[in-house]
Amino acid sequence: MIVVLHPSCTPEQQEAVVRRIREAGLGAHLSQGVMRTVVGVIGDDRTKEQLRTMLEAMDGVERVVKVLQPYKLVSREFQPQTTAVQVGPVRIGGPEVVVIAGPCSVESREQILQAARAVKAAGAVMLRGGAFKPRTSPYSFQGLEEEGLRLLAEARAEVGLPVVTEAMDARQLELVLRYADMVQIGARNMQNYTLLREVGRARCPVLLKRGPAATLEETLLAAEYVLAEGNPSVVLCERGLRSFDNHTRFLLDVGAVPVLQRLSHLPVLVDPSQAAGKRQWVPPLARAAVAAGADGLLVEVHPDPERALSDGPQQLRPQEFADLVRQLRAIAEAVGRTLAALPVGTP
Amino acid sequence: MIVVLHPSCTPEQQEAVVRRIREAGLGAHLSQGVMRTVVGVIGDDRTKEQLRTMLEAMDGVERVVKVLQPYKLVSREFQPQTTAVQVGPVRIGGPEVVVIAGPCSVESREQILQAARAVKAAGAVMLRGGAFKPRTSPYSFQGLEEEGLRLLAEARAEVGLPVVTEAMDARQLELVLRYADMVQIGARNMQNYTLLREVGRARCPVLLKRGPAATLEETLLAAEYVLAEGNPSVVLCERGLRSFDNHTRFLLDVGAVPVLQRLSHLPVLVDPSQAAGKRQWVPPLARAAVAAGADGLLVEVHPDPERALSDGPQQLRPQEFADLVRQLRAIAEAVGRTLAALPVGTP
Amino acid sequence: MIVVLHPSCTPEQQEAVVRRIREAGLGAHLSQGVMRTVVGVIGDDRTKEQLRTMLEAMDGVERVVKVLQPYKLVSREFQPQTTAVQVGPVRIGGPEVVVIAGPCSVESREQILQAARAVKAAGAVMLRGGAFKPRTSPYSFQGLEEEGLRLLAEARAEVGLPVVTEAMDARQLELVLRYADMVQIGARNMQNYTLLREVGRARCPVLLKRGPAATLEETLLAAEYVLAEGNPSVVLCERGLRSFDNHTRFLLDVGAVPVLQRLSHLPVLVDPSQAAGKRQWVPPLARAAVAAGADGLLVEVHPDPERALSDGPQQLRPQEFADLVRQLRAIAEAVGRTLAALPVGTP
Amino acid sequence: MIVVLHPSCTPEQQEAVVRRIREAGLGAHLSQGVMRTVVGVIGDDRTKEQLRTMLEAMDGVERVVKVLQPYKLVSREFQPQTTAVQVGPVRIGGPEVVVIAGPCSVESREQILQAARAVKAAGAVMLRGGAFKPRTSPYSFQGLEEEGLRLLAEARAEVGLPVVTEAMDARQLELVLRYADMVQIGARNMQNYTLLREVGRARCPVLLKRGPAATLEETLLAAEYVLAEGNPSVVLCERGLRSFDNHTRFLLDVGAVPVLQRLSHLPVLVDPSQAAGKRQWVPPLARAAVAAGADGLLVEVHPDPERALSDGPQQLRPQEFADLVRQLRAIAEAVGRTLAALPVGTP
Repeated sequence: MIVVLHPSCTPEQQEAVVRRIREAGLGAHLSQGVMRTVVGVIGDDRTKEQLRTMLEAMDGVERVVKVLQPYKLVSREFQPQTTAVQVGPVRIGGPEVVVIAGPCSVESREQILQAARAVKAAGAVMLRGGAFKPRTSPYSFQGLEEEGLRLLAEARAEVGLPVVTEAMDARQLELVLRYADMVQIGARNMQNYTLLREVGRARCPVLLKRGPAATLEETLLAAEYVLAEGNPSVVLCERGLRSFDNHTRFLLDVGAVPVLQRLSHLPVLVDPSQAAGKRQWVPPLARAAVAAGADGLLVEVHPDPERALSDGPQQLRPQEFADLVRQLRAIAEAVGRTLAALPVGTP
Repeated sequence: MIVVLHPSCTPEQQEAVVRRIREAGLGAHLSQGVMRTVVGVIGDDRTKEQLRTMLEAMDGVERVVKVLQPYKLVSREFQPQTTAVQVGPVRIGGPEVVVIAGPCSVESREQILQAARAVKAAGAVMLRGGAFKPRTSPYSFQGLEEEGLRLLAEARAEVGLPVVTEAMDARQLELVLRYADMVQIGARNMQNYTLLREVGRARCPVLLKRGPAATLEETLLAAEYVLAEGNPSVVLCERGLRSFDNHTRFLLDVGAVPVLQRLSHLPVLVDPSQAAGKRQWVPPLARAAVAAGADGLLVEVHPDPERALSDGPQQLRPQEFADLVRQLRAIAEAVGRTLAALPVGTP
Repeated sequence: MIVVLHPSCTPEQQEAVVRRIREAGLGAHLSQGVMRTVVGVIGDDRTKEQLRTMLEAMDGVERVVKVLQPYKLVSREFQPQTTAVQVGPVRIGGPEVVVIAGPCSVESREQILQAARAVKAAGAVMLRGGAFKPRTSPYSFQGLEEEGLRLLAEARAEVGLPVVTEAMDARQLELVLRYADMVQIGARNMQNYTLLREVGRARCPVLLKRGPAATLEETLLAAEYVLAEGNPSVVLCERGLRSFDNHTRFLLDVGAVPVLQRLSHLPVLVDPSQAAGKRQWVPPLARAAVAAGADGLLVEVHPDPERALSDGPQQLRPQEFADLVRQLRAIAEAVGRTLAALPVGTP
Repeated sequence: MIVVLHPSCTPEQQEAVVRRIREAGLGAHLSQGVMRTVVGVIGDDRTKEQLRTMLEAMDGVERVVKVLQPYKLVSREFQPQTTAVQVGPVRIGGPEVVVIAGPCSVESREQILQAARAVKAAGAVMLRGGAFKPRTSPYSFQGLEEEGLRLLAEARAEVGLPVVTEAMDARQLELVLRYADMVQIGARNMQNYTLLREVGRARCPVLLKRGPAATLEETLLAAEYVLAEGNPSVVLCERGLRSFDNHTRFLLDVGAVPVLQRLSHLPVLVDPSQAAGKRQWVPPLARAAVAAGADGLLVEVHPDPERALSDGPQQLRPQEFADLVRQLRAIAEAVGRTLAALPVGTP
């Protein structure tokens, strides 16, 4: 980092800054300009967040500029090759684009089985579905909880797709892991650090959604929590940001896909359904994501969206999803990739 | 709510919409305009979020407009008089403006005792301090945890100020409640519904911070989770929104104070320290908050901010805080209020 | 529109509301609910913005909800078929995807001629380049002004590509139109209504960029200004929104493409260069835009970006642009379109 | 500025960076860290925006960090004492807080005279009112234009308050200046550089409103355009930012007041009416602004808001304004200031 001193900084204040840097085991290099003096900090300061805070609070300091990113284990500088996260037979982060689909919520045995069969038939290789649902209103459907997990497992047994589902809380984690192949950390929980540490310790595949007002740095630092506990199997997911226009529910940050892939070695998925909020905007957003280089998609599909207990307007009907997969196959090929398929012999 | 039908809506689709409304136990009233037909839903639909989702997903429906707010127990329409939340000898939500102060984190026995004495001497009536700290980076100081809680309790015993501190997770709640007088739900946890339900059941005083990208409606629905579990003792807190200029850390939404007070009967505090990010902007934001009608403030004060383990740049020194309290007293009087004082005889 | 009355609305206030609606030549239809009374306004109120303002200001009115969009001439409801805007031999808004390219600023004869030749060779069908440059700082290069326009015309004469360039002010318009085939209204001028009216009267092809904080409704109303003056040749352009993360310069709202195409019959282009801010993010954003259905792109290309007088970091080198066009061709085909080519025989 | 080199930067690329800096007449100072090499640029680079762009575009450069602000004439570093802008008998930027009030638009002789008398009686020292109105919709009232200016002048002649009104375009400027004492540049025109240069040359007092998505740096650079033309009489005005909650029309950035005052020597006003959008939020926002240290306010007041042709819902009635001025007087005193009064003997 670089410490910019204030024009009024006294020699004593400057000396104190240098001392504080050296106390932290780093070098200090002064550079006297015409308008400002700056102090370069020499050494790997990526994990020295506390030093930065202290320097910023010192008298005589105008500001502190980070030169290195504050995350380390997730950075491509630390690990150049892309991480491939294996979930059952599915590999996320390889050359193939992975399509994950299923209903917003698990609502009944029939509904999840219908959905699972439909998304598999259309080409999805993983099944999604919420059993614990974080809902803005306490009067909304909150999920079937453990019963929902059981139904997901039943659907997996029938159709052979590995399952990803959300855990909202560290206490639910053990239960969720009893049934699921991959745990989703939802956008509202991206900075639930207790939960992040727990999934870090659990060493399970993790799908980490970016919060609707999270910077990319905050998102990568959230993933760093998981990796720092020893779990390298993290997949990032962009699902739209809070913005000021309400034609779509959130504003999909499609540019985040290549930026995250450049900054980090973790795979990057996109959830076009959350961002769209309306069924009709899902296909163009999904196509855009694959064209921008996303490693996969998370798409909401419901056998009967008009009867859905949550987010009906944004869930695709099975036929609409099948049409979309055809379009995605063409886009994937246009960018030199293919859609992932299940290995032959999957039930 | 009002359902706006699409110009292409068929009589069968219109009929289905009306039927769905009636199935939910509400009335439907058609109004045929020149350009659109609209269906008014007759009845108290505030808690019928699921019906709205289904209507929005139906063919022939252009959009659904809410006429009533989707929250109920927290609304001023439901309870006209302002709620006063009692925390030990302190009453939040009455005519007096409550100043709560203390360090960002509890760092040591000496630090929290010094801080507690200083803020009490300057006029604060409650003590704040973090024992469990949600930090953006895993390499930042994460709090002293239970030891921090013990030190807070010790400080309370000495100076006589009730204590508010954060619980980050439902599992920590029992522990936090063993020591604290009021539980803070931090901005990152505003939509941690598991935690909201738990503090709802615990019936303790709750300080609920607005998330940095939360709408006022989402904030009130988060509070509704707590009230719906039977806990009416919720205090809201505005602490700044995510925005695009970085001169301040967050953008304080001072207008949220009167709007929340109009929409809801819950008291509204402001945290100018989080929003400011820098010590020098804290006093103007604090004065603005009281001038706008806030029921109190949450101010970070540290005996030696240059040695603080978290958020040093935004913590006031004890003397700066004492100067601020003098200004606030004048502002409070200018808006016809006074600063709350501890009852005579508090230790 | 629908007027929601306040629960405290008196019969006299309600009567006044109804009277005001009827005075405006519209019908009023009362609907009494359990919690609220609403007044439906019967008739085409799209252009009655003044009535809405007055109703909102009346005592007893809680709020006014628009049922119809406030724009008319630009709406797809008013004109179902997509407008095709003809610029010389190029047709924007047809089945073919139009690639427009060239440097951010015209800097010299050699620079613009090199750029023009390169973008034509790579497959662009129109040339862009700024002669009047709106720059955030007065110390930045402000454009060659009329000399820049002359050089653009010279480049057109040599390579045969029609030219689009920006007019920043109504006074510059006549001059710009002497040289250009299409006038660009920049994002900072999207709500410069004097300028919008002038290009409306000039009946020239107009490229209207969305402002970085403009809602889609505001964007369409800006276009409505042009159409209301009798000029139907407007092309919209999304170029990124102001947001809170600075890895890209602006946040490309790729979802705006299908939404604008649904709301309006005007063609929609995307400028990935402005949004990206850095060369390396331009190709993924460009691909995403075409995959989402954009009718064309505006791409910045400079023969030597390291010597560019403005926005060097975001301008592609000629070879990078040629590579991008190849990718775009594949994406266009994947969505059932082709890239536009110049008619045979163009110089 | 500081140039951070990429880890892959070659010696030749580094040499080219240093050469480019020296060609610009500045010094280059290399500092080799463990993880990165940085090049400090020595000299006053505040007005070298072009150099920065070129450096950012060079191979081997990771990013360029500004150490100095890119504005100069408006900065407090350049001129430590606050500028006082004199408008007739009124001094903006001195110890007194200036209240400017009047209707959104001039609508008729009677309306503006009533408004002028009322705001003067309540304590305003300047009159505002729009003759040229930038309106989002072409179907909204667009102002009385020159007739409106004449009526403003008539009101001034009667009540003795100097007049501020908006010019939307360089061509209108001469006309506006024939009648007005101070020219307003509206938020939508904050980056209309042609207009900024013209008001710079006109040397008239200028009220420059911050755009709804403008950073503080962009706002100060817009003011720099005016000062660079030789006009030091610029007053800045915060009027709310675009955000995601619609309870208020814009989000008032009250923190911008102290920040702008620290960065710049120009006076800072606040327009609470634009930000509020609704009458009831104007008083709390106005009080907050004065408490935060604003040098004055711009408040919309209409004799009969329910008949207003623009922005009726946000205009105060005369009595409400008089009540507000009383509150503001108390707040001003609480922060050690007073409300400005007209000199004795003003007509």
